[in-house]
Amino acid sequence: MAFLERFQRGKLKMARIEAFSDGVFAVVVTLLVLELRVPGLTDARSAAELAHRLAELAPKLVSWLASFIIVAKFWLNHHQLMDLPRRATYGTAWLNSIFLMVMSMTPFPTALIGEYPWNPLGLTVFGCVMALATLAFLALQAYIARHAALHDAVGRKPPAITAKSWLAVGSYLLGAALGWAYAPLAFVMFFLTPLFFITPPGREAAA
Amino acid sequence: MAFLERFQRGKLKMARIEAFSDGVFAVVVTLLVLELRVPGLTDARSAAELAHRLAELAPKLVSWLASFIIVAKFWLNHHQLMDLPRRATYGTAWLNSIFLMVMSMTPFPTALIGEYPWNPLGLTVFGCVMALATLAFLALQAYIARHAALHDAVGRKPPAITAKSWLAVGSYLLGAALGWAYAPLAFVMFFLTPLFFITPPGREAAA
Amino acid sequence: MAFLERFQRGKLKMARIEAFSDGVFAVVVTLLVLELRVPGLTDARSAAELAHRLAELAPKLVSWLASFIIVAKFWLNHHQLMDLPRRATYGTAWLNSIFLMVMSMTPFPTALIGEYPWNPLGLTVFGCVMALATLAFLALQAYIARHAALHDAVGRKPPAITAKSWLAVGSYLLGAALGWAYAPLAFVMFFLTPLFFITPPGREAAA
Amino acid sequence: MAFLERFQRGKLKMARIEAFSDGVFAVVVTLLVLELRVPGLTDARSAAELAHRLAELAPKLVSWLASFIIVAKFWLNHHQLMDLPRRATYGTAWLNSIFLMVMSMTPFPTALIGEYPWNPLGLTVFGCVMALATLAFLALQAYIARHAALHDAVGRKPPAITAKSWLAVGSYLLGAALGWAYAPLAFVMFFLTPLFFITPPGREAAA
Repeated sequence: MAFLERFQRGKLKMARIEAFSDGVFAVVVTLLVLELRVPGLTDARSAAELAHRLAELAPKLVSWLASFIIVAKFWLNHHQLMDLPRRATYGTAWLNSIFLMVMSMTPFPTALIGEYPWNPLGLTVFGCVMALATLAFLALQAYIARHAALHDAVGRKPPAITAKSWLAVGSYLLGAALGWAYAPLAFVMFFLTPLFFITPPGREAAA
Repeated sequence: MAFLERFQRGKLKMARIEAFSDGVFAVVVTLLVLELRVPGLTDARSAAELAHRLAELAPKLVSWLASFIIVAKFWLNHHQLMDLPRRATYGTAWLNSIFLMVMSMTPFPTALIGEYPWNPLGLTVFGCVMALATLAFLALQAYIARHAALHDAVGRKPPAITAKSWLAVGSYLLGAALGWAYAPLAFVMFFLTPLFFITPPGREAAA
Repeated sequence: MAFLERFQRGKLKMARIEAFSDGVFAVVVTLLVLELRVPGLTDARSAAELAHRLAELAPKLVSWLASFIIVAKFWLNHHQLMDLPRRATYGTAWLNSIFLMVMSMTPFPTALIGEYPWNPLGLTVFGCVMALATLAFLALQAYIARHAALHDAVGRKPPAITAKSWLAVGSYLLGAALGWAYAPLAFVMFFLTPLFFITPPGREAAA
Repeated sequence: MAFLERFQRGKLKMARIEAFSDGVFAVVVTLLVLELRVPGLTDARSAAELAHRLAELAPKLVSWLASFIIVAKFWLNHHQLMDLPRRATYGTAWLNSIFLMVMSMTPFPTALIGEYPWNPLGLTVFGCVMALATLAFLALQAYIARHAALHDAVGRKPPAITAKSWLAVGSYLLGAALGWAYAPLAFVMFFLTPLFFITPPGREAAA
């Protein structure tokens, strides 16, 4: 289709796409921590009262940790993927922006499950946003793989993380579903999923 | 005029102008999401109550989406434009800073229409800020095109998006005006306008 | 002194110092706008009430504008200065960090004069922070000029903005002082001062 | 172990790791200042009342200053360390992300001791987070030193700041402990510790 072909135009510099993406990643991971707010104390010098209040922050700490690991994992996969093309088309730039859009949203579901760790709908929102981010990444990856020639990246292939990524989509959604039965199961899934990706794709993963 | 000519001095590195700009773009798109605040619940575990509260966030989600697409579009056009000069003069640097100043302001009108989606003045403020950003971009583009020789960019021409940009100014202002009749029309215009720019300028757009 | 000489060691890459600095500049200018908060309305659809509330934001808009221009001016001077050395010593890195420390503080005095535009102490705080930033910049500049040989920058000299910078220190402090007589005079000084630097230093400025 | 060896794969670009890290550092140091909030005044024009309120911010200013110096010191050490490898493995990328995770957390303990400077538990949290950041840095450093060959960095050795870093871990923990006796002693330790690192490692420090 003529309209879609227009997205294959453009010779955008990878350096700026990476710089913009790294900026978004950096701001997102740092904003995640803003939910850890200093608790109010009736006695400012009481260690016992502060201990009590800090213990109440535990769910926020756990959800922050889960999100940080997930976003760091996305950054690593993004790094691997963006290393392939030497130039980007408009299609790459837009799919990248859509991926970053979902990424930039993560502080919201993170705050949601930190505030209401036992609310199944909150866990579902978290799981769905992460599944959506993975789908956006898959779209970006498929586009780059398909139009490799357009990117001056002939002969180099994207890492075989497609199968894993689909698995991750299912895994995040499974976590969301399990949250309706017992909330901690959802957290377990959200912690396990990024672990699929902590090592680079090897030959055995090239399915 | 001797004073204005002084702005044509300077051999600033494009790399730093781009890094500063990418930083501002990255922070802006990530701050946009901060308006999506976790709602207060009387029953922390109630999915029904959370569903109700999340539904109330819909206008904020829509205005966030509109702003993200607009800022991503500006980033892409900025990328295209800044790819031309090899060095920047003080004039380029200042016009770029003025453009970034308007860009950095976008979280405010976005929050405004997210909070008061039916307030025509809020929609007008949003439309005017976006029109102003487009005008600032046009000024930057015109300066770079006119002083191409100063930028060691002889023989390369800025993309023919001037006509489109003027159209966008009108389109944002039209959205602002329509908001006084019926608010959703303004949102429609704000979503349609960046779509003019989602593909790179082709031969047929070189008016 | 042997201890001070140790600061002349180190072969730090300018690229990272610039990237860190650009990041701080970008976050600072974007955070400045966060003071522009969406006002509360009793009637969400009332344009008249919103107009009234937006008019009350005028001092915040003015102080944001003043700060943005000042920070953009510092970014430009920083860009010029950091273009000279090819490598940085520990001394350069620390003086740069101290300068960035004062820069990163600017959202606070900006919010202060935006909230209390008629409070002379607030204006004094603003003027003093800006004077301090200028002094930190002067120290960085003097260090780089003096140790040019250490920076592999032999033969290139820092721009002659020293005299201007001292003038700016005085000008910010004068603004602070005038604030005790009549607040708008302070604002005028804060707007005028960065204008000394909007064009690059020419031969006539090489005093 | 086969699993651990997989982390030694990957040929990640240092440029992106540095860009992501610089972004996190830049956002962190700028967010630190957000705790300095404009105080509420009953008389907006009263310099005396503002002076009184600003004086109450002193602990926040002091904790901001301590944190800024500590983070700037970490940035400098990170810069030195990351200058060694030419390519990064997955192990480097993950250890770097874990280090950044602790770094990104610093605004929370900073706000804690700024709000409750006399609360020994708050000081302990601050000291422990900083000790944890130092341990994360030590792990990153040890990994890079051990796998230097993997990083194409043969013949170059990481700076001899290991001994100093262990000293810093102890020093932060000592500060945390002293906070239970007399709070200002903890602050003194938090200010002294980064000073170990303000000059580059010399021959005499190569223990």
